[in-house]
Amino acid sequence: MVNKLKRFLIGRPMKSTELEGEKLSKLKALAVLSSDALSSVAYGTEQILIVLMAAGFAAVWYSIPISIAVLGLLTILVLSYRQTIFSYPSGGGAYIVAKDNLGTSTGLIAGGSLLVDYILTVAVSSSAGTDAITSAFPELHDHRVLIALVMIMFLTLMNLRGITESASFLAIPVYLFVLSIFVLIISGTMKYALGGGHAEVPELGAAVSNISLFLLLKAFSSGCSALTGVEAVSNAIPNFRQPAERNAAKTLLMMGLILGIMFIGISLLAYWYGITPQMKETVVSQIAEATFGRGLIYYWIQGVTALILFLAANTAYSAFPLLAYMLAKDKFMPNMFMARGDRLGFSNGIIFLGVLSALLVIVFDGHTENLIPLYAVGVFIPFTLSQLGMMVRWLKHKPSGWIGRFAVNTVGMLTTLTITLIFIFTKFSQVWMVFIFLPLVIFLFHRIRSHYRNTADQLRIDLAKDKPVIKGSTIVVPVAGITRVVLHSISYARSLTDNVVAVYVGFDEEDIRKMEQRWEEWNPGVRLITLRSRYRSILRPLYKFIETVEWKTAETDHITILIPQFITRYWWQNILHNQTSLLIRAYLFAHKDIVIATVPFHMNK
Amino acid sequence: MVNKLKRFLIGRPMKSTELEGEKLSKLKALAVLSSDALSSVAYGTEQILIVLMAAGFAAVWYSIPISIAVLGLLTILVLSYRQTIFSYPSGGGAYIVAKDNLGTSTGLIAGGSLLVDYILTVAVSSSAGTDAITSAFPELHDHRVLIALVMIMFLTLMNLRGITESASFLAIPVYLFVLSIFVLIISGTMKYALGGGHAEVPELGAAVSNISLFLLLKAFSSGCSALTGVEAVSNAIPNFRQPAERNAAKTLLMMGLILGIMFIGISLLAYWYGITPQMKETVVSQIAEATFGRGLIYYWIQGVTALILFLAANTAYSAFPLLAYMLAKDKFMPNMFMARGDRLGFSNGIIFLGVLSALLVIVFDGHTENLIPLYAVGVFIPFTLSQLGMMVRWLKHKPSGWIGRFAVNTVGMLTTLTITLIFIFTKFSQVWMVFIFLPLVIFLFHRIRSHYRNTADQLRIDLAKDKPVIKGSTIVVPVAGITRVVLHSISYARSLTDNVVAVYVGFDEEDIRKMEQRWEEWNPGVRLITLRSRYRSILRPLYKFIETVEWKTAETDHITILIPQFITRYWWQNILHNQTSLLIRAYLFAHKDIVIATVPFHMNK
Repeated sequence: MVNKLKRFLIGRPMKSTELEGEKLSKLKALAVLSSDALSSVAYGTEQILIVLMAAGFAAVWYSIPISIAVLGLLTILVLSYRQTIFSYPSGGGAYIVAKDNLGTSTGLIAGGSLLVDYILTVAVSSSAGTDAITSAFPELHDHRVLIALVMIMFLTLMNLRGITESASFLAIPVYLFVLSIFVLIISGTMKYALGGGHAEVPELGAAVSNISLFLLLKAFSSGCSALTGVEAVSNAIPNFRQPAERNAAKTLLMMGLILGIMFIGISLLAYWYGITPQMKETVVSQIAEATFGRGLIYYWIQGVTALILFLAANTAYSAFPLLAYMLAKDKFMPNMFMARGDRLGFSNGIIFLGVLSALLVIVFDGHTENLIPLYAVGVFIPFTLSQLGMMVRWLKHKPSGWIGRFAVNTVGMLTTLTITLIFIFTKFSQVWMVFIFLPLVIFLFHRIRSHYRNTADQLRIDLAKDKPVIKGSTIVVPVAGITRVVLHSISYARSLTDNVVAVYVGFDEEDIRKMEQRWEEWNPGVRLITLRSRYRSILRPLYKFIETVEWKTAETDHITILIPQFITRYWWQNILHNQTSLLIRAYLFAHKDIVIATVPFHMNK
Repeated sequence: MVNKLKRFLIGRPMKSTELEGEKLSKLKALAVLSSDALSSVAYGTEQILIVLMAAGFAAVWYSIPISIAVLGLLTILVLSYRQTIFSYPSGGGAYIVAKDNLGTSTGLIAGGSLLVDYILTVAVSSSAGTDAITSAFPELHDHRVLIALVMIMFLTLMNLRGITESASFLAIPVYLFVLSIFVLIISGTMKYALGGGHAEVPELGAAVSNISLFLLLKAFSSGCSALTGVEAVSNAIPNFRQPAERNAAKTLLMMGLILGIMFIGISLLAYWYGITPQMKETVVSQIAEATFGRGLIYYWIQGVTALILFLAANTAYSAFPLLAYMLAKDKFMPNMFMARGDRLGFSNGIIFLGVLSALLVIVFDGHTENLIPLYAVGVFIPFTLSQLGMMVRWLKHKPSGWIGRFAVNTVGMLTTLTITLIFIFTKFSQVWMVFIFLPLVIFLFHRIRSHYRNTADQLRIDLAKDKPVIKGSTIVVPVAGITRVVLHSISYARSLTDNVVAVYVGFDEEDIRKMEQRWEEWNPGVRLITLRSRYRSILRPLYKFIETVEWKTAETDHITILIPQFITRYWWQNILHNQTSLLIRAYLFAHKDIVIATVPFHMNK
C-alpha cells in the first residue's frame, strides 16, 4: 500500500547505471540552476530605488551607475566562478574551494552558511511565490501558509522523482520568464526611442544635495541581492553531461549574460519611465503597465514573474543535497545524506530540505520577508571565502597567466567582502542571527565528525593479527511452560551446543513445583533452573540469573539468550499476548553484552 | 527518571505475600464499595418527584409510597445478594452467578453489561462531581472537561497505589457524607415535629385526577436509579479480610441499612417541606436550606455531597479490574488483565478504565448526563440475570429451607426485570445503544477466546512423544566491511558451527572486488559470498540469498542470520548510523521462519 503510493508519487526505482542518463544538458541545466539568479531581476532594481528614494526623487539617476556597478560585480563573479569550475571540475562549491585552500574550518563556515541559506531560499521563495498568487487572488490570503506548504511539497516530490524529469517540467516557466522579460525590454526601449512614455526625470549627473557615500553603498549592496544564486552552477558540476566542466562554464556564461541584460534593461526602463518604488505595485509591474497598458500581456508578465519566484526555490533543491553529500563524505554530516534513493537523487537531503523549510514557513506563519537580508549575508560570506580560497590557490600553484586570474579573484573578494560588511553594519538587527546559527552548525559538524572518528577507531582491526577466536557457548532459554515454542527453542539450542539451560520464573512455590514436575516428565535433555519472583517481575530475576551465568562463563563461553516470539496472523492479536519477550529483549540489549537470538513462531490462525 | 516518577506517584513495589495485608476491613470496605450506592440518595428522591410533577403538585404524596416500594426493592436486593455472597464466597458478581447457573452466554451478557457500565459510572460520576464544583464556582465552568480529567487521573493514581491506601484516604468523605445526611435528617425531622417549616402539601391518599399506572411505574423505575451500586460488595469478596464472606455480608447489610434510612429520610423531609424539583437547585439543597438556612452547615452539606458524587466513581475502580480479571481468567479478555502490578492491584484494568472513561468525558465534552439511563439499564440487566441464576441454583441444589430463598430471588428477579423493561420502553431513545454495544462486546469476548484456544492448540505438545530434535546449523553473517563488529560476529558464529557463510552486498564491481581482496587477505576461515545490488537496496539481495540457503538446507539445518547492531552511548548518535540492521531484522522476522540473532556492539564513546 505505502509502496504503491510511493511508486505513484516518485516513479519506479532506477538502476545505479542509469545515473549517466539522469545528467543535465546545458539548456536543462540553465533552467534547473538559474531560476534563483534570474528571478532576482524581479526585485533587484527595486531594492536599489527604495534606498535611493531616501535622498529624494532627484537621486534616482544614481540607479544607472549603481546598476552598472552591480553588472560589473556580476562580471567579476562569473569570471571568478568560471575559473573555479575549471580548477574544481568535480564540483567547486564554496565549501570545497575554501576547505581546499583555507583549511577545513573556513570550509565549514562556507558550507554551513550555504546549507542554512538553501533552507532559507526555499522558505523565502515559496512565501514570495505565494504572495504573488495571493496578490492576484486576495480571497486566498487566509490560506497563505497552506499554499506555501503545498508548493514545498510539490517541489520536494518533483525532486524525488529525479533530476531530468523535474528539469523537463520546471524548465518551461524559466524559458517563458526570460522570453517575456526580453520582449518587455525590447518593446519598452522601442516605445521610449519612438518618443512614447517620456517622463520628467533627473538628468544623469545632476547634483543631489543630501546624497552620501553610505547611502550609495547601501543602495549598491541592496542591488547585489540580485546576484544570489550565481554560485549554483559551480556547485552542481557533477550533475552536468560530459564534458561536465566545459558545459558548466558555458551555462554559467549564458546565465550571466541573460541576467546582466535583463537587470540593466529593467534598470534603464525604470529610469526612462521615471518609475519610483510603490507600496502596492512592483517596479516590474509599473514598467509592464507603462509599456503595454493593463492588458493580457501585462497579466502574462505578472504571472510568469510569480512562477519564477516560486521556482527559485528549486535551485536550492539541486544544491542542498549535493553540498550535504560532500559534507557527509567528509564525515561532517550523517551518512544518510550519502545514499542515493530509488530515483538516484540524494533523497534524504531533498526530504530534509523540504521538512526544514516547511517548518520555517510554519514558524514564521508565511511571513519570511525578514529573512531576506539574512539570506543575502548567508550567500556573500561563502562568495567571499570562495574567492579568497582561489586567491590562495593562484599564489600557491602559480600557473602561467596566474596574475590576471589572481587579480580577478582579488577584486571579487574585496567587493563581496565589502558588501558583506555593509550588510552587517546597515542591517544588523536583521542579520545578527547569523552569528548564532553559524557557530552552532559548525559545532554540530565537529561533534558529528568526532563521533564517526571514534566509531572508526573502535571498529578498526588489524587484518594480519585480529582473527576469529573460537570459544565455548552457553545458551539460556527462558521458558514460561512446556509448549511447541519451547520445543522449537530447545531443539534449536541443542543443535548448536550442549550447554543449554532452561530458566523458569515462577510466582509461587506451587507454580514452581508443578513446572519442575512436568519438566522431569518431559525430560528434554536440558537442565531446568527455576527462579522465584516475589515482585511478580520476570525481568529482574532473569537479569540476575544472566549475571550469574556471565560471572561463571563469560571468559570461556559466548552467552546467548534465546527468546521465543509469537508472530500473530493479525496485528490486533498482539494485544492478546503479553509482550514480555519484547521487554526482555530491549532491556538485555541495552544492558548486557550478550547475543540475543529470537526464535519466531508464526501462528497460522 | 521514568522509574522515579512512577515510584513517587504510586509508591514502592510490593511483594506478592503482602497481598493479605492489602485486604479490607469492614469499615474500610464500606467506604470503598458503597460510595456509588450511597451517593444515589443525592438524586434518588428528586428523580421520583420529577416524574410525578408531570401529574401536578397534587401527585407529590405518591413519592412516599414509591420510596417505600424502592426501600422494599432495596431490602429484596440486599437479601438476595446476601444469599449470593454465601453461595459464592470467592466473589459472586452477576457474571459468575449467571455463567454458573444459566450458561456462559448469559454470563457474558451480564459481564459485558457490567464492564461497560463501570466505564460509564466513572465518566458520569466525574462529570457530575465537576458540575457540583462548577455550580459553586461558576468561573471554572470553561474548564469542566479538564477538571473531570484531573479527577479521573487522581482516582486512577490512587487506585494504582493500592487498595488499603486509597481506602484510608477516600474513606473520610464517605463517612462525612453519611454523618452530614444523618444530621440533616434528624434536625429536619425535629424542626418539623416541633412545628417549624410546615408547608401546604397534599395529604397522603388524596385523589389525583390525571395520574396513571404508567407514570407511577416510571417514577418507581426512576427512583430505582438510587439502587445502582448495591452489587459492588458481592463482586469484591476477595478484597475482604478473612472471614471474607461473613465480613462482606455484614458490610452489605450495613450499607443497605444506611442507604435505606438516608433515602426514606430525604423523601419524607421533601414531602413534609413541600419541596418540588427545581431547575437550578437540587432537592437535597432545598431541604438543607429549609432546615438550616443558607449558612455554614448548608454549604458544608453541599460540599460533602459534591465530594461523594465524585467518589462514586471509585466503586468502579474496585469492581472493574476484578471483573476483568475473572473474564481474563476465562480467556474472554486479554491476559494482561490478570497481572498484578507493583502495588498488587490489577494495574492494567485500572489504567484501562481510567483511559476509556477519560475518552468518554472528552468525546461528550463533559456532558455525560444523557448516559445516566443507559447506565441504569446496564445495572439492572445483570441484576435480573444474577437473580435468575440464583433461582436456578436453588431449584438445582434444593438445600434445606430453599423455598424461602427461592421466593426472595424470584420476587427480586421479577421486580428488576420489570424495571429493566420500563426503562427500555419509557426511555428507548436514551438506551438503544445498549442493543449495539452489548452484542459487540460479546462478539469481542468470543473472538478473543477463540484466538486463545487456537493458540493453545498450536502450542500444545505431547510430553511423551514430542522431544527436541537435533539438526545441523547454518549461520549467515551479513557484513558491510571488515571491522571489529564483523570479527565479533564471525568469532561467535564459528564457535557455534562450521557452516558459517558471510554475505556482502556491493553496489558496483569495484566495491565487490575490493571487498573480496581484503577478505582473502584477512582469511577468517569463513567463505564470503558477494552479491551485487543494482538498485542500491541491501534488503532485497539478502532476502533472495536467504531463500536460496533455505531451499538448499532447510530440511537438514536450522538457519540463523546474525545481525550486528550498534548500541551508541547517547541516543542522538543513532541518527548518525544507517538503521539497516533494524530494517533487515524487522523484514526477515515478518517474512521468514529463521532465527535472528543480534550481536550487540556497545560503543563506549
